Amino acid sequence: MGAALLSQFATEIFVPVCAVIGIVFSLVQWVLVSRVKLTSERHAPGSNKNGYGDSLIEEEEGLNDHNVVTKCAEIQNAISEGATSFLFTEYQYVGVFMIAFAILIFLFLGSVEGFSSKSQPCTYDKEKMCKPAIGTALFSTIAFLLGAITSVLSGFLGMKIATYANARTTLEARKGVGKAFIVAFRSGAVMGFLLAANGLLVLYVAINLFKLYYGDDWEGLFEAITGYGLGGSSMALFGRVGGGIYTKAADVGADLVGKVERNIPEDDPRNPAVIADNVGDNVGDIAGMGSDLFGSYAESSCAALVVASISSFGVNHDFTAMMYPLLISSVGILVCLITTLFATDFFEIKGVNEIEPALKKQLIISTVIMTVGIAFVTWIGVPSSFTIYNFGDQKVVKNWQLFLCVGVGLWAGLIIGFVTEYYTSNAYSPVQDVADSCRTGAATNVIFGLALGYKSVIIPIFAIAISIFVSFSFAAMYGIAVAALGMLSTIATGLAIDAYGPISDNAGGIAEMAGMSHRIRERTDALDAAGNTTAAIGKGFAIGSAALVSLALFGAFVSRAAITTVDVLTPKVFIGLIVGAMLPYWFSAMTMKSVGSAALKMVEEVRRQFNTIPGLMEGLAKPDYATCVKISTDASIKEMIPPGALVMLTPLIVGIFFGVETLAGVLAGALVSGVQIAISASNTGGAWDNAKKYIEAGASEHARTLGPKGSDPHKAAVIGDTIGDPLKDTSGPSLNILIKLMAVESLVFAPFFATHGGLLFKIF
Amino acid sequence: MGAALLSQFATEIFVPVCAVIGIVFSLVQWVLVSRVKLTSERHAPGSNKNGYGDSLIEEEEGLNDHNVVTKCAEIQNAISEGATSFLFTEYQYVGVFMIAFAILIFLFLGSVEGFSSKSQPCTYDKEKMCKPAIGTALFSTIAFLLGAITSVLSGFLGMKIATYANARTTLEARKGVGKAFIVAFRSGAVMGFLLAANGLLVLYVAINLFKLYYGDDWEGLFEAITGYGLGGSSMALFGRVGGGIYTKAADVGADLVGKVERNIPEDDPRNPAVIADNVGDNVGDIAGMGSDLFGSYAESSCAALVVASISSFGVNHDFTAMMYPLLISSVGILVCLITTLFATDFFEIKGVNEIEPALKKQLIISTVIMTVGIAFVTWIGVPSSFTIYNFGDQKVVKNWQLFLCVGVGLWAGLIIGFVTEYYTSNAYSPVQDVADSCRTGAATNVIFGLALGYKSVIIPIFAIAISIFVSFSFAAMYGIAVAALGMLSTIATGLAIDAYGPISDNAGGIAEMAGMSHRIRERTDALDAAGNTTAAIGKGFAIGSAALVSLALFGAFVSRAAITTVDVLTPKVFIGLIVGAMLPYWFSAMTMKSVGSAALKMVEEVRRQFNTIPGLMEGLAKPDYATCVKISTDASIKEMIPPGALVMLTPLIVGIFFGVETLAGVLAGALVSGVQIAISASNTGGAWDNAKKYIEAGASEHARTLGPKGSDPHKAAVIGDTIGDPLKDTSGPSLNILIKLMAVESLVFAPFFATHGGLLFKIF
Repeated sequence: MGAALLSQFATEIFVPVCAVIGIVFSLVQWVLVSRVKLTSERHAPGSNKNGYGDSLIEEEEGLNDHNVVTKCAEIQNAISEGATSFLFTEYQYVGVFMIAFAILIFLFLGSVEGFSSKSQPCTYDKEKMCKPAIGTALFSTIAFLLGAITSVLSGFLGMKIATYANARTTLEARKGVGKAFIVAFRSGAVMGFLLAANGLLVLYVAINLFKLYYGDDWEGLFEAITGYGLGGSSMALFGRVGGGIYTKAADVGADLVGKVERNIPEDDPRNPAVIADNVGDNVGDIAGMGSDLFGSYAESSCAALVVASISSFGVNHDFTAMMYPLLISSVGILVCLITTLFATDFFEIKGVNEIEPALKKQLIISTVIMTVGIAFVTWIGVPSSFTIYNFGDQKVVKNWQLFLCVGVGLWAGLIIGFVTEYYTSNAYSPVQDVADSCRTGAATNVIFGLALGYKSVIIPIFAIAISIFVSFSFAAMYGIAVAALGMLSTIATGLAIDAYGPISDNAGGIAEMAGMSHRIRERTDALDAAGNTTAAIGKGFAIGSAALVSLALFGAFVSRAAITTVDVLTPKVFIGLIVGAMLPYWFSAMTMKSVGSAALKMVEEVRRQFNTIPGLMEGLAKPDYATCVKISTDASIKEMIPPGALVMLTPLIVGIFFGVETLAGVLAGALVSGVQIAISASNTGGAWDNAKKYIEAGASEHARTLGPKGSDPHKAAVIGDTIGDPLKDTSGPSLNILIKLMAVESLVFAPFFATHGGLLFKIF
Repeated sequence: MGAALLSQFATEIFVPVCAVIGIVFSLVQWVLVSRVKLTSERHAPGSNKNGYGDSLIEEEEGLNDHNVVTKCAEIQNAISEGATSFLFTEYQYVGVFMIAFAILIFLFLGSVEGFSSKSQPCTYDKEKMCKPAIGTALFSTIAFLLGAITSVLSGFLGMKIATYANARTTLEARKGVGKAFIVAFRSGAVMGFLLAANGLLVLYVAINLFKLYYGDDWEGLFEAITGYGLGGSSMALFGRVGGGIYTKAADVGADLVGKVERNIPEDDPRNPAVIADNVGDNVGDIAGMGSDLFGSYAESSCAALVVASISSFGVNHDFTAMMYPLLISSVGILVCLITTLFATDFFEIKGVNEIEPALKKQLIISTVIMTVGIAFVTWIGVPSSFTIYNFGDQKVVKNWQLFLCVGVGLWAGLIIGFVTEYYTSNAYSPVQDVADSCRTGAATNVIFGLALGYKSVIIPIFAIAISIFVSFSFAAMYGIAVAALGMLSTIATGLAIDAYGPISDNAGGIAEMAGMSHRIRERTDALDAAGNTTAAIGKGFAIGSAALVSLALFGAFVSRAAITTVDVLTPKVFIGLIVGAMLPYWFSAMTMKSVGSAALKMVEEVRRQFNTIPGLMEGLAKPDYATCVKISTDASIKEMIPPGALVMLTPLIVGIFFGVETLAGVLAGALVSGVQIAISASNTGGAWDNAKKYIEAGASEHARTLGPKGSDPHKAAVIGDTIGDPLKDTSGPSLNILIKLMAVESLVFAPFFATHGGLLFKIF
C-alpha cells in the first residue's frame, strides 16, 4: 500500500503555515480597506480609530463634502452598534443552550459504557484497546465547544468587517465604480480568508492536542473530533435562523410600509425600520452565511477524518494521508489567495457592466487553479493505493480515483453556481419572463416565480447526483466527504464573493440615507445587483455542499451505528424516510410564519411612527430607529427557538425511541427533500428580487415597457420580491443547516443510540 | 392454514351482485335528479329530453319564471357542449398515445423471453410451469386498454352527470337550500357509485375471463391484471393534467381581467371566459378527480392481487381469499349506499350552516360502518392464518392483523380528511389568520398561505407513516395495499362529496349568469363554500391513498424485479432517491408554467373582447364564449404533453439505462417528496380560496373588518386565491398520479427491466 510522498514532518509544517498565510493575507486586505478614511476631521464623534486626513478623496465632485462623510460614519456606526448588540443578545441565549447541550453530550456519550474510565476494545478493531467512552465524551464535548466558539468568532468577525467596510464602499463610490468594487471585494476577502484559515488552524491544533491524550487510538481521536462539526453547525443554525428572521422581519416590515404604503424609496432615512434593515443584512447574510459555510467546512472535514481513521490511513497511522482533508483546505487557501489578486490587483474594473463578469471570473479561476492544486496534493498527500472503510468491508482505492472524487465535487460546485446565476440573474430569459409576467399582476408573477424555482432544481440535482455517484463508487463515504471538501476548497473566494453582496447592499443604503447624489446611488445599485446574483450563487454552493456533507455524515453515522444496510423496504426505515422528507416543510412553515409575524409587528411600529411623529414624512423629524432594531432583535430571538428545537431534538427523539434504522431513514428523507426546497426557495427569491431590479433599472426596451418605478407591473414585482425575502434569506438557507446538523448530531450520538436507542421497539 | 369461510361460489356471486347494486343505486339517484325539470315549455330549443311540466316548481317567488328556466337550460347546454368537445379532443390525442403505449407494452414484455410461445418455469415457484411471457404481454396489453377505457368512461360519465345536475341545482335553490343540496349530493352520488361499481365489475369480469387462458397459473394471471392499474392511471394522468390546465387557465384568465381589471363579479355573463371557467370545473375537478380515484382504486387492487398471487392465497388457489381486495370494495359499496341515505333521506338540511356538518357526517358514518364491514369481510373472506410474500420470505399473518391493516388505512383517511378540513375551512383559525394577514397586503397573505400549506403536511404524514408502519409490520406489502384499499373502500361516498363541490360551484355560476336573485345566489354560495372544503378533503384522500398505493406498487415492483433490498447506502439507489425527490419539482414547474402561459393567452383574448366588442361591458352585446373555450382546449392539450412525457418516460429511461435498483430509488424518492408537495399545494390553495370567501362573506366581526369586496385586504386575498388555483387544482393533485403512475409502470415493465435493464452499468 505504501505511504504518502509527503513526510509527517512536512505535513505538520505545511498545514499551519498555510493557515497563517491566510490570516496574514486577510489582515493585509483589512489594512488596505482601512486606508479609506471615514473621518473628515480629527477626533470626530463616532469616528473610526484608523488613520486621519482625507488625501485620497480628491478626484470627483463632492469628495470633500465633510458633511457627507460624517453622515456616512454616523450611519455606519448605528448599523454596527445594532448588529453588535443583536449578536451579543443572540450569543447570550445561544451560550446557555451551548452549555446545556455540552453537558448533554458528555452525559449521553459517557453513559455508553456506564462512565467507566477503563480502556475498552476498539469498536472496529476488537483486538486493540481504545480509550474509554468517557474520554471520548469529554473530548467530544471540548471539540463541540471549540467548534461553537470558532463559529461565533467567524460570524462575529465577518459582521465587524462588513460594517467596517460598508460606508467606506459608499465613499469610494464617489471616485468610481471600480474603486468601490475593490473596497467591497477586499472586505469580503478579509472575511473569507479569516474564516477559512481560522477553521483550519483550530481544527489542526485541536487534533494535535487531542493526540496527546489519545496517542495511537486514532479511532477515538477522530470520533471525538466530530464534535467540532456539531459545534460549528449548531451555532450556524441559530445564526442562520435568528439572523434570517431578523433581516427579513426588518426588510419586509420596512418595504411594506415604506415602499407600498408611503411610496418612499428603499433605504429612505425617513423609514424607521431602515437601520434595522441594514443591520439585518449584516447579521443574516454575513454572520449567518459565515457560520453556515464554516459549519459545512468543519463537518465535511470531520466526516472525512472519521471515515479515514478506520480505513488504511488510520489503521496504518499514516499521518499525512490522514490529514488529506486538511491538506486540501491548505492548498485551497493558497489558490484563493492567487485568485483574489485577479479581482483586486491584476485587473481593474472600469464600468458597471464589468462587475458581474469579474465576480464570475473569480469562480472560474479558482476552480481551474484548484483542480491543479488538488492533483498536486493528492499526488504527494496519499499513497498510490489504499483502502477505505465501506460499511463493513475495506475498499481498495487508487490515488487518481480520489483526485476524481475531489475534482467532481469542485466542478459540480461551479456548475451549480452557474445554473443558479442563469436562473437568478436578470441578464437571462428566466428572470425576464418572470418580470414580463408582472404585466398581468402579482398573481402571475408569483406563479411564474414559483415555477422558476422548481425548475432551477433540475440541473443542480443532476450535478449533485453525478458527484455522489462518482465519489461514492470510487471511494464510498470517504469519497463523498472529500467531494464536499472539493466543493468547499475555494471557500475563501466563495465567501469573499458572497460577503461582497451585503456590503454593497449596505453601501447603497448608506448612500441613500446620507443623501448622496443620484449618480453615486446608481453605482452602488450596480454593485448591489451583481451582489444579488452572487448571493444566490453562494447559496447554491452552500446547499450543494450541504447535500454532500450531510450524505458523508450520514454514511459515517451508519458506519458508527453498526448498521450495514439502510433498506427502504423495511417499515422502520420507510417511515423514517417519509417523516424525514416532511421535516423541511415543518421547519419552513415555522421560519416563514416567524418572519411573517415579526414583519407584522414591524409594520405596526413603522406605521405608528409615521402616524405619531410629526414631520417625519416631510423629513423634518428623525424616526426612532432603536425601537425597530429592538423589535427585530426580540422577535428573532424568540422565534428562533421552535425551529431550533425541531432540528436539535428530532435526532435525539428518533434515536432514543425508534433507534438507528429509523433515524437513518429520517436523515435520508430530510436530505433528499430538503435540498430541493432549499434550492427552489433560494432561487425563486433571488429571481423575484432581480425581476424587480430589472424593471427598476429599465436597461432594455423590454424592461422599459414594464416600468418605471410605481407602475402596475413594478408594484406586482415588489410583491414578489417581498414574498421572496423569507424564502431566499430565512427558510431556504436554513434548510442547509437542518440537513447537515441532524446528520452530524446523529453521528456524534451514534454510540449512545447504538447502545441505548430504539426504546419503543424494545418495549413492544 | 385452512381456507376462507366464504365459499368460492358465494364469492363469485357476492362481488358482481354488489357491483350491480351499486350501478342500480346510481341509476335510481339519477332518476331522482332528473325529476327536476329543466324545461318550462314543450320542446324548448336546447331543452333536455326527460320529463315535461313544472309541477314541482311552485313553492317560492320566481319559480314560474319561464325565462329563467330557459336561460339556465341554455347555459347548462353551453357548459355541457364545451366539456364534451374538450373531452373528445383530449381522448383523440390520448387514444393515439394509448395505442402506441399498448404496442410498447406488448413488445417490451413479449421480448422478455424472445417472443417464445412455450411455457416457462414460474418466476417464484421454479418447479411449476407458467404461461409464456408473450401471453402475459398480450393480456397485460388487454388489461391496460380495459383500464384506460374504464377510466375514460368514469371521467366522461362523471362529467355528463355533473353538467346534467348543475342547472337543476340552481333551479332547486329557488325552493330552499335543502332541496338544492339534495340534488347536488345525489348527482355526486351517481358518479361515486357508478365509478366504484364499474371499476369493480370490469376488474372482476377481466379476472374471470383471463382465467380461461391462465387456468391455474395465477402468478401470470395477476401479473397481467396489473395492466389494468397502469391503464387507469395513465388516463388519469392526462385527465388530471389536461383538465387541470384547462380549468385553471380559464379560471385565472377570467379572474385576472374580470375581477381585477374590470371589477365585475365572478361568473358574470359579460366575461367571455366564464363558460370556459365553468367547463373547466367539470373537466378538471370532476372528470380528472374521477379518473384519479379510479386509478388509485384499480392500482391498489392490482398491487394487492399481485402480492397475494405469490402468497399462500395464490399458491393454495384459495379463490375467496384471493378476491379479498374485491370483497372489501364490494362491502364498501353497500356501506356507502347506507351512508348516502343519511344525507338524502334520513335527515333534511334546513339551513345554510347545516351543509358542512352534513357532509362531514358522511365521512364519519361511512368510516364507522365500514369498520364493521371490514371486520365482517375479513372474518369470512380470509383464513384465520395465512402467509404473505415478503421479499423472498413467506410471512405468517393472522386474520385480525389483516383487519387492522385495512382499518388503519380507513381511519388514517378520516384523519387526513379532518386535518385538511381544519387547515382549509374558514371556520378555523389557520384560514382566518391567513385572511387577517391580507391587512398588510398580498405579500404577507402569500407568505402565511405557504407557511400554512407546509404546516398542514405534518399530521397527514404522521397518519400515513403510522398506517405504513402498522400494515407493513403485520402483512408486508400486502398490508400496505389493503390499507390503501381501506382508505379507498368508502370511495363512493368520497367521490359523491367531492363531485358535489364543482356541481355547486357551477350551480352558483349558472345562477349568476341567469340573473337570478341575490337570495338564490347566497344559497348557491353557501353550497359552494362547503364544496370548497370537501374538495380539499377529497384531495387529501386522493393524496393519502396515492402514497399508500404507490408504496404497495413499489413493493410489488421490487418483488417482481427480484431485488431483495433497496439499500440507500449504495450509489445506484441514492442517486435514484435524490433525483426521484426532484421529479415532483420538475413536474410542478411544468404544470404551473403551463397554467401561467395558458392563462396569459386567455387574458389577452378576454381583454381583446372587452376592447373590441361594443356594448359588452354594458351587457348589450354577448361575448364570444367559444373562442375562450377553444383557447383553453388547445392550450391544455398542447401543454399536457411535456409533463405527461416526463412521468411516462422516466421509469422507462431509468429502468432501461440504470436498472431496477436506481429505479427503486427514484420511486421511493418521488413518493416521499411528492406527497409533501401535493398536500401542501392543495391545502395552501384551498386556504387562500376560503380566506377570500371568508372576507367576502363577512360572517363575523373579524371578517367584516377586512371586507367588503373591493377593499384592499380583499384585493390581496384575490391575488392569493389566483396563485392558489394552479397549486390546488393542477400541480398539486397531478402529483398523486406522478407517484402512482411511475410505480405501476415500473411494476408492469419489471420483467423487462429485470432481463434487459441497466444498460449503462452493463456497458461500464
